[in-house]
Amino acid sequence: MGRWEPDARGRLAEAALELYSERGYEQTTVAEIAGRAGLTERTFFRHYADKREVLFGGSDLLQDLFVNGVAGTPLSAAPVDALTAGLTAACAVFTDRRDLARRRQAVIAANRELRERELTKLATLSAAAADALRGRGVGEPAASLTAEMGVAVFKVGFARWIAADDERELGDWLRESLDGMRDLTAGGRAEP
Amino acid sequence: MGRWEPDARGRLAEAALELYSERGYEQTTVAEIAGRAGLTERTFFRHYADKREVLFGGSDLLQDLFVNGVAGTPLSAAPVDALTAGLTAACAVFTDRRDLARRRQAVIAANRELRERELTKLATLSAAAADALRGRGVGEPAASLTAEMGVAVFKVGFARWIAADDERELGDWLRESLDGMRDLTAGGRAEP
Repeated sequence: MGRWEPDARGRLAEAALELYSERGYEQTTVAEIAGRAGLTERTFFRHYADKREVLFGGSDLLQDLFVNGVAGTPLSAAPVDALTAGLTAACAVFTDRRDLARRRQAVIAANRELRERELTKLATLSAAAADALRGRGVGEPAASLTAEMGVAVFKVGFARWIAADDERELGDWLRESLDGMRDLTAGGRAEP
Repeated sequence: MGRWEPDARGRLAEAALELYSERGYEQTTVAEIAGRAGLTERTFFRHYADKREVLFGGSDLLQDLFVNGVAGTPLSAAPVDALTAGLTAACAVFTDRRDLARRRQAVIAANRELRERELTKLATLSAAAADALRGRGVGEPAASLTAEMGVAVFKVGFARWIAADDERELGDWLRESLDGMRDLTAGGRAEP
């Protein structure tokens, strides 16, 4: 890792998000990100493969937390309970980070390549979730369906969390979404 | 449209799929596709913007069928019943086309850019479905959740349909997936 820079990774991520928001993702260079963070390009590339990955650096952690959350439930738990545990564990990534999540999402929404990357990350997360469930003996189609439900719940709950102006945490929104899905599949209307 | 070529669009799609399967998507040129179909490049570009779109030419029709299926249900129908009608209508695209769907999916699975495109098309379909539901007075989060459930059901059911070697139609697999999702959200195991 070379010379130690206090929280270089976090400073680079914050600088990148500022610049992407101010002048657009495409118009921002790695040199500018490093400069804003008071670091060198060389340090940037020690932490991120390219300027796109700055926006997705948290997705491996998210996936690990989710998979560990699933793994921490008893094998006798129903798939939906393992899913709930995984989602709850994954929420830790976002604690006190709604403003950051909101700014990040605005940058992604403005760029087709980034939107595609986001969808790919969610598909990877879904595949990892299905793997984790199959590893616990959940059969098919239950494992794949539960994983896809998890992504659906996450997408809708996350969008509602970043759009909201109250104090509810992401986990509350995810539980609301999962409850809504239960009502809807049962033929109800899932009104908020 | 210029000079009339009997089913030029279908012949180009079949030629493209053959070539993509034989030698890979990246290694195939538009000139080769046109040549295999016995048509000119000029004719190719009358029907498709580029060689990628040959694989996704059916997605507008799929979306229209889905939205019309939703629109054809009574306004009093529960969101999940409107969803079921939309999915059932969309299945018409795939009647007697399992072999084609299977070959197409193998080409897409082998190429990152195509996989991202597929995910983007599904996200577009989800947005259109949510719009159609909101247009019927379904509120949020019910509209978005139902739309995402629809994509989840479609993804899992479609994958199982193309992997299967029995005579069941796509619609049967989608209904199985939706039933499975209902059991899972209710805390069950959705064994096949």
